[in-house]
Amino acid sequence: MIGIGMLVPLLYIDSQSLFAQSAKEEVGISPWGPEDEIGTLNLMSENSRLSVLTKISSGKVYDLSTDYFVGMPSFHALGDPGYLFWLTHTPHGTIVDNPNGLGEEMNKKVSYTGDAISLYTHMGTHIDALNHFGLNGKIWNGYTPEKHLGDKGWKKTGAETIPPIIARGVLIDVAAYKGVKTLTDNYRITEADLKGALQKQKVTLQKGDVVLIRTGQMVHYANANDFLHQYAGISLNAVKWLIEQQGIMLLGADNLSFEAFPAERSDNWVPVHTYLLAEKGVMFIEQIYLETLAQDKIYTFAFIGASMKLRGASGAPMRPIAIPIN
Amino acid sequence: MIGIGMLVPLLYIDSQSLFAQSAKEEVGISPWGPEDEIGTLNLMSENSRLSVLTKISSGKVYDLSTDYFVGMPSFHALGDPGYLFWLTHTPHGTIVDNPNGLGEEMNKKVSYTGDAISLYTHMGTHIDALNHFGLNGKIWNGYTPEKHLGDKGWKKTGAETIPPIIARGVLIDVAAYKGVKTLTDNYRITEADLKGALQKQKVTLQKGDVVLIRTGQMVHYANANDFLHQYAGISLNAVKWLIEQQGIMLLGADNLSFEAFPAERSDNWVPVHTYLLAEKGVMFIEQIYLETLAQDKIYTFAFIGASMKLRGASGAPMRPIAIPIN
Amino acid sequence: MIGIGMLVPLLYIDSQSLFAQSAKEEVGISPWGPEDEIGTLNLMSENSRLSVLTKISSGKVYDLSTDYFVGMPSFHALGDPGYLFWLTHTPHGTIVDNPNGLGEEMNKKVSYTGDAISLYTHMGTHIDALNHFGLNGKIWNGYTPEKHLGDKGWKKTGAETIPPIIARGVLIDVAAYKGVKTLTDNYRITEADLKGALQKQKVTLQKGDVVLIRTGQMVHYANANDFLHQYAGISLNAVKWLIEQQGIMLLGADNLSFEAFPAERSDNWVPVHTYLLAEKGVMFIEQIYLETLAQDKIYTFAFIGASMKLRGASGAPMRPIAIPIN
Amino acid sequence: MIGIGMLVPLLYIDSQSLFAQSAKEEVGISPWGPEDEIGTLNLMSENSRLSVLTKISSGKVYDLSTDYFVGMPSFHALGDPGYLFWLTHTPHGTIVDNPNGLGEEMNKKVSYTGDAISLYTHMGTHIDALNHFGLNGKIWNGYTPEKHLGDKGWKKTGAETIPPIIARGVLIDVAAYKGVKTLTDNYRITEADLKGALQKQKVTLQKGDVVLIRTGQMVHYANANDFLHQYAGISLNAVKWLIEQQGIMLLGADNLSFEAFPAERSDNWVPVHTYLLAEKGVMFIEQIYLETLAQDKIYTFAFIGASMKLRGASGAPMRPIAIPIN
Repeated sequence: MIGIGMLVPLLYIDSQSLFAQSAKEEVGISPWGPEDEIGTLNLMSENSRLSVLTKISSGKVYDLSTDYFVGMPSFHALGDPGYLFWLTHTPHGTIVDNPNGLGEEMNKKVSYTGDAISLYTHMGTHIDALNHFGLNGKIWNGYTPEKHLGDKGWKKTGAETIPPIIARGVLIDVAAYKGVKTLTDNYRITEADLKGALQKQKVTLQKGDVVLIRTGQMVHYANANDFLHQYAGISLNAVKWLIEQQGIMLLGADNLSFEAFPAERSDNWVPVHTYLLAEKGVMFIEQIYLETLAQDKIYTFAFIGASMKLRGASGAPMRPIAIPIN
Repeated sequence: MIGIGMLVPLLYIDSQSLFAQSAKEEVGISPWGPEDEIGTLNLMSENSRLSVLTKISSGKVYDLSTDYFVGMPSFHALGDPGYLFWLTHTPHGTIVDNPNGLGEEMNKKVSYTGDAISLYTHMGTHIDALNHFGLNGKIWNGYTPEKHLGDKGWKKTGAETIPPIIARGVLIDVAAYKGVKTLTDNYRITEADLKGALQKQKVTLQKGDVVLIRTGQMVHYANANDFLHQYAGISLNAVKWLIEQQGIMLLGADNLSFEAFPAERSDNWVPVHTYLLAEKGVMFIEQIYLETLAQDKIYTFAFIGASMKLRGASGAPMRPIAIPIN
Repeated sequence: MIGIGMLVPLLYIDSQSLFAQSAKEEVGISPWGPEDEIGTLNLMSENSRLSVLTKISSGKVYDLSTDYFVGMPSFHALGDPGYLFWLTHTPHGTIVDNPNGLGEEMNKKVSYTGDAISLYTHMGTHIDALNHFGLNGKIWNGYTPEKHLGDKGWKKTGAETIPPIIARGVLIDVAAYKGVKTLTDNYRITEADLKGALQKQKVTLQKGDVVLIRTGQMVHYANANDFLHQYAGISLNAVKWLIEQQGIMLLGADNLSFEAFPAERSDNWVPVHTYLLAEKGVMFIEQIYLETLAQDKIYTFAFIGASMKLRGASGAPMRPIAIPIN
Repeated sequence: MIGIGMLVPLLYIDSQSLFAQSAKEEVGISPWGPEDEIGTLNLMSENSRLSVLTKISSGKVYDLSTDYFVGMPSFHALGDPGYLFWLTHTPHGTIVDNPNGLGEEMNKKVSYTGDAISLYTHMGTHIDALNHFGLNGKIWNGYTPEKHLGDKGWKKTGAETIPPIIARGVLIDVAAYKGVKTLTDNYRITEADLKGALQKQKVTLQKGDVVLIRTGQMVHYANANDFLHQYAGISLNAVKWLIEQQGIMLLGADNLSFEAFPAERSDNWVPVHTYLLAEKGVMFIEQIYLETLAQDKIYTFAFIGASMKLRGASGAPMRPIAIPIN
């Protein structure tokens, strides 16, 4: 295993050449080798993690996840299932059904509750795996459906390959920078917005950062229709600056699907998704809850997040936390 | 908010009286007040978290979660659903179905994968919420189905109330102590086993610890039938020692459901569950992956775990991590 | 078993007294005895079925069911799940996954497709079981949740108790009678409408009939939003005439949920449902496809329908057919 | 539309040539044209249906479907989901949750029950669609996944294309012929068995018949493990006789998956499935309930069955009925 100091130059030399290709939008071939499945998360190392952990200055923990509840925002527009929750055992039902065969006296004494859920993997606070969007029939690092996609998902870059993520986190509160509760309909956050907000916050980015961008849209989360309505997002230009100039490792935002619609390119309906996932090997977190961080003006922190290890999946729920650092 | 120093005495005075009652197995009334929903997790404080975080001595991260995969171990014996995973979008299917209405050229260029899952909430590495088992028609702190259980789960003590957990973690490797790969069929771990293993490991418990007990059963996880077969578990006596004498905050084990079967009491089919959840307000983690910690003989660590905020649920997936401490 | 000739008078004497009670809306006690679970479907007998079957005059079969498809109309307004369909095996996926362990050559030769579905039981063409709506904590015939409702549904009146239904069917085409494609928003069909349409159609009802009422709403089925929007339905007055004066056995309509909204009574949000299911023991079919029958002006027919035997369920999909009779 | 009299010769001339090819097991090209999706169900016509309907001599109806219940037999051996049933509304839960926003008084008065299901489409009494098994990357009539299989199933031969089926039905009670309750483990029913049983029953087959074969396995349906254990099935030789010599239209049996295992051919793990579905365009019904027909020795009847119109699906639940004929 080589250190982060060596990888970054390799990556960004390579990124330049990848970028030159990206006018024609092709999947990136990983600088971390033909077996790579996690892209820029390779920037993490024991040293990088220890570095941020030793800067922790508080025991206050910010919970960056939404709840999961029936009726929560979903991708039903593309036919994807909503969140389901159901009870499989209740104290009363156990008495009537006697599923354990132990009879009424036992089941009146031991009050049993069990439940099950169902969800599209891109609901609530979650991370997109690199296979979620590819280009021209391939995904990041050239993996193909022909060889690697079965009925139970991808054999490569599935969500189970995403490691626990510990890194310096930075909140860029664009809504606060603009002085609004939530950005205007379909607003597309620019490189200039990011720079302006960072300057206002007196924060500079570092290579390997986890950058979380606040649009303010999370105030609508309890009402799915409002949350889904004409939300603001991040522009292609802004993410290119973050990736190619700043060398960040992971992204996140508090809206439904990171980028804004309608898409910036006429020949690609999700150009930010394919740029990040397929061309650059950069994952991102959607529907992340940044409200309390923003209220407390906590702009840099230890980001700690470990997503569900859903074998083969294109995304997975994650409940990240933020802990203030010096 | 009062400090942990004050809470512990209150709790354990109270625990003594609760224990006196527990011969007749009744739900506990929380020493943290009539609104309490998280039991002993109240032992956490900013100070307790900061204390363990500042002891972190390594950037090595141990991942304590299983994968989720079709065919993984389940509670089908009680009629609960298995883990389902299915693709909702594939690169090829998107071309044939055209779900976004953008046509073949676009859908050949942008290669889309999406998927959905369904699971009983007690599958894979997960935490049991306090409502999972009650006694005599009530759950922890006296909440009742009549007032608090709707069709979408419990209004009190649902999994969404479980905070991110950061505490000193201790591995008790009983299998290693016994010199076996995995404990014998239906073996019930005793207080003496725990003491012996701790002594061998040269570790002492502290109030507020997260205690993870290794039976070795996880070696069978890839084969559900083997994993479910006659697994060893923890005795009532052992957990009483951990709770009442050691004041630990949270428990965990690497087997299906923490306790061993057949049950120790003839009048209660899950006496360890009801003792912990309903009488004492202590949650626990099941099917936790302890193999690499055990191999590296890491017995004390920062435990960091944040479970899915499933509103109303009796349990939730969690992907905890362990980081070695001084 | 007694003949239909004797039952009808018993029923309708009894119905009168039930009706006297119905001002206060209480569940009906079945004239077919304390074990009855199917209400007026008891009107069927071997004789009644043979009578209609021997009148069949054509081999033309009218299919009265909708398709089931992702995006189809649902009861999501009340939090109920939509229709899900997913592939569990595909020819290509089988080759990649090798689920049978037989290897690539075998799986390239044998091209395997499998799939699964999930649905709220009141989707597509379906019948409501008598337990779907009760009154004051009871359902038809006085069954109670305390004794009869477990976690896997009702022990009484579940959909598995609904027999195959063969009876004289009558289409009442109210939309055609009104000379419209589909009835106006929220229109409530009256007794006079039914009488007028029957007179126009030159059809008289008979005791034991299956009466299917056409609002025209089915023309919107392909677009769920339109289908769900302000649909017309049947009034309380009209169903009372059908049940109490005409002695019909089963009802059906082509709209989402038979009755119109807002409800006619301020103290009951589904008074037609509770009148039919809970007070009178009359089931009904929703979302039934009547378009081709209407086009061909087939007003009387053998109705043959057998719903899925979903144990304990409050409703079940049914694909009824109609065959013209003399 | 041409009449049945013309189709049968066409078919069976064609069948001979198809059969000649079948040594190498290739999908059949339909004699009903390049758009055909239903194979031998094309044998039905208005005349054929009227012919059997006019022979009905009784109002007694035999219900040929199993119940659907949690724990019922499933194809979990191949990773397919079991049957799920869950309550989405209960009288008590509605009071606690108030999903309609109408408050406690209303929800105490109107007692609401709703539920949802999930199932693999090949559970309970169901029919296999022609796409369920293909050969060498194609299905019946040459349709291919490349052109016709999207993420929501097959665009061709999906279960929604299966018409209501009305035809002469014949029970062949092989268990009774052999004088056993249920056939011996893995027994493979031969052409001679079918001939012997028909002779004993004094029944001859006719072109276009629906032939239902009883192994006796249904006596184990309540216990899934027993039902799934080493069941008997139909041999390739026997089905070839039925299709090629007798010209039957549709098949059925009371076991899990019609054919017996291990498979008769070493190069095809489901040779009877591919012979019927892919080579000959003949569908079949699995897990059909024949016990009461057998008890009453009803060997010929009107078969009436209409399966759920699951768009794109490889199979669908069906609740067929049988009515005795002259």
